[in-house]
Amino acid sequence: MTASAMINQVPGPVSKATSDKLNTIFDARAVHFVVDYDKSEGTYIVDVDGNKYLDVYSQIASIPVGYNNAALAAAAKSPDMISALINRPAIGNYPSAKWHDVLKDGLLRAAPPGLDKIFTAQSGSEANELAYKAAFMLYRRRQRGEAGSPDWTPEEVSSCLDNAKPGSPDLAIMSFANSFHGRGFGSLSTTRSKAVHKLDIPAFNWPQAPFPQLKYPLAKHAEANAAEEKRCLAKIEEIITSWHCPVAGLIVEPIQSEGGDNHASPAFFQSLRALTSKLGVCLIADEVQTGFGATGKFWGHEHWQLESPPDMVTFSKKAQTAGYFFGNPMLVPDKAYRQFNTWIGDPARVLLSKAVVEEILDNKLVEQCARVGDVLYAELEKLASKYPSQVQNLRGKGQGTFIAFDVQNPVSFVAAMKKRGVNIGTCGVSTVRLRPMLIFNETHIPILINTMDAVLSAL
Amino acid sequence: MTASAMINQVPGPVSKATSDKLNTIFDARAVHFVVDYDKSEGTYIVDVDGNKYLDVYSQIASIPVGYNNAALAAAAKSPDMISALINRPAIGNYPSAKWHDVLKDGLLRAAPPGLDKIFTAQSGSEANELAYKAAFMLYRRRQRGEAGSPDWTPEEVSSCLDNAKPGSPDLAIMSFANSFHGRGFGSLSTTRSKAVHKLDIPAFNWPQAPFPQLKYPLAKHAEANAAEEKRCLAKIEEIITSWHCPVAGLIVEPIQSEGGDNHASPAFFQSLRALTSKLGVCLIADEVQTGFGATGKFWGHEHWQLESPPDMVTFSKKAQTAGYFFGNPMLVPDKAYRQFNTWIGDPARVLLSKAVVEEILDNKLVEQCARVGDVLYAELEKLASKYPSQVQNLRGKGQGTFIAFDVQNPVSFVAAMKKRGVNIGTCGVSTVRLRPMLIFNETHIPILINTMDAVLSAL
Repeated sequence: MTASAMINQVPGPVSKATSDKLNTIFDARAVHFVVDYDKSEGTYIVDVDGNKYLDVYSQIASIPVGYNNAALAAAAKSPDMISALINRPAIGNYPSAKWHDVLKDGLLRAAPPGLDKIFTAQSGSEANELAYKAAFMLYRRRQRGEAGSPDWTPEEVSSCLDNAKPGSPDLAIMSFANSFHGRGFGSLSTTRSKAVHKLDIPAFNWPQAPFPQLKYPLAKHAEANAAEEKRCLAKIEEIITSWHCPVAGLIVEPIQSEGGDNHASPAFFQSLRALTSKLGVCLIADEVQTGFGATGKFWGHEHWQLESPPDMVTFSKKAQTAGYFFGNPMLVPDKAYRQFNTWIGDPARVLLSKAVVEEILDNKLVEQCARVGDVLYAELEKLASKYPSQVQNLRGKGQGTFIAFDVQNPVSFVAAMKKRGVNIGTCGVSTVRLRPMLIFNETHIPILINTMDAVLSAL
Repeated sequence: MTASAMINQVPGPVSKATSDKLNTIFDARAVHFVVDYDKSEGTYIVDVDGNKYLDVYSQIASIPVGYNNAALAAAAKSPDMISALINRPAIGNYPSAKWHDVLKDGLLRAAPPGLDKIFTAQSGSEANELAYKAAFMLYRRRQRGEAGSPDWTPEEVSSCLDNAKPGSPDLAIMSFANSFHGRGFGSLSTTRSKAVHKLDIPAFNWPQAPFPQLKYPLAKHAEANAAEEKRCLAKIEEIITSWHCPVAGLIVEPIQSEGGDNHASPAFFQSLRALTSKLGVCLIADEVQTGFGATGKFWGHEHWQLESPPDMVTFSKKAQTAGYFFGNPMLVPDKAYRQFNTWIGDPARVLLSKAVVEEILDNKLVEQCARVGDVLYAELEKLASKYPSQVQNLRGKGQGTFIAFDVQNPVSFVAAMKKRGVNIGTCGVSTVRLRPMLIFNETHIPILINTMDAVLSAL
């Protein structure tokens, strides 16, 4: 398949009828269109009305190597997968004999430099919350160590069952304005993207850091941007040191994705690492959207060129499973069963993740993404020059295909793109984000660019 | 396979070596033994040292129809499963054409009476948190309706991004002393079981209700137990009406499982339904452990014989996936994307769940569990009479195989049972809980009882 083919409106009558029927038992109000996954292939998605789209949204940035990928299908049919599906273990108590190798030869092959241990989870939100819990337990362990009494006190043990101090302490995770870290009660307390994500849900009184508001193109505004980053860093230190309770962790996305594809410089992140180390705050890189190759490096934070790695790196989406990596053995809590749950992830999804890692590494898809991203960015620069009032703040240069730009009306832009056979997504307030799969290559660029050109010229 | 066969110590040398190796990359301190899932079959689990155990713990109560179940294997090999594994959708945006039927013919076939809608999730903890969010959004919607202005105010929209009132309101979920509802920051705030689950993790200031402390056998202490339940109900009303903030929901397990297999009477739950209805509090039945047949009814709360159902029923474990059922359409939030996340469950696991439901219904395994449970309970009564100082507070009569009893030293009891070929678990402080699979039948009872007899006589 090498082109889109639109034979019906979007959503078409079959999509609408299917979605209406679904809505009687399952909230279907957010359905874009209903998909025929059997007919979808590679980087093309096909809906139930027969429309075929070039997909540069990829299930909210979560499809790594294309629909109906043959290598993934082989993994899905393997005896190990059948067993993982039908003999689902409580991994912490009864792991399979194969569990070590599945991790070692799969997810850990792709582990960020310096982080050689893993805790598995089922979603990015869960992964972040587990990282927060590890940060809180580490913080209290250090406090107890400094106080010279590593044991839990009777008051702690009894008060925590009442959700009261000292057992349930006032400790915080700091996150950035416009960040998105998930929708659990802990992860949502760190999410600062949109009211629709947060309204009416109780939240912890945790601090919000200013995220640098950079001007694009970055190279043109280097001085002003550096000053803005410096301002934010000073503010972050001020907030951490004056907050009503200790800040045990700080979570940051290498590129703020849901919040509008907001970037900061490697220098900013280097300073953030230095600052958090100085203050004894765990630095957590949320790589749920940036991880697994989409920025032209396997992990988005590799662009930061840190001397010492983040304390924890969380992942999900393109990994097709979730969890966090860490290196410091003190992040394993002092007792068993503190970081624990019945399933601790899903071995079936972890097996699939191993196949994803192999597919990415065997086919050098990260390198491909970096190369294709550069070409794509250059083409988008041309479009931005052609439509300067319509395509603004193009960003993501040198970040693989993790590219975004602002338009006047993203909703109508995206609708027009879909009608012409390109499935594309938005983020933030006025941003269109490109989230192609890692198999997106040079042959797809003209399809995307020509469709954009046609849509922009008709606006 | 019709008997246990122990050829090695527990854990054996291969288990120990495998677990030590695993521990270098993944916290393995809670490993009981490492499993050979290929050799495990039906209700027998085989470890890597060649020991074969009758398994009445079932992966912390989560294996429904036995290891290497043929019907589940068929589902795991189906083309739909392959597609669900390798084409993982963002279900809310791009559902498969088959999604409606998978839900309707699978999980919804087993839906509790009166609850005909579903929201899917990946764990019991996530399911409970989603139910809490639904309860909070419903509470605020009713408040806005009473105030005559259903729209969100600008103050709400902006304050929620700061985790501040009025957008992030002070609202609470009440839970019971000794309950277990999961380990996320919201679900953990309702968990009240053990310090090891909660210590050092910040928690919401939510209320704890007293759970009736009944005397066993229930029939013998009817009057005292009724008084105790009445006392708790009065206290619950007092706490709800005097709490520092509104209580939007109350969550309860039909049988408190992790907390020690604590029971209450149908009359107690009927009063709880009436009380929560009166006070406008959502009643959430947490059926993560009791659901899917283990109490001799498909849902544990069916034993309550309510006139109107709980507002939400959450499930996981034996379902092999998770989520919540509800009936009231007002529990669908006023706007799309409020109850939402990228994956919204896992279609692969939902497909497997459909096979589990079919296997249970086709083979009448709920009825079997009720029947076998009665026989098992009678046998355990005999043992309790034989060892009155060692087997105490036998409970779960008429609740299928969801049976428990107290022993002096549960850890050494369980270790002795394992050495003799029965894998069995504990809960609470001094309780041994039976959590056999639904395929546990009359032929397995003598193996369990004779092993217990041997262990008890040697104590």
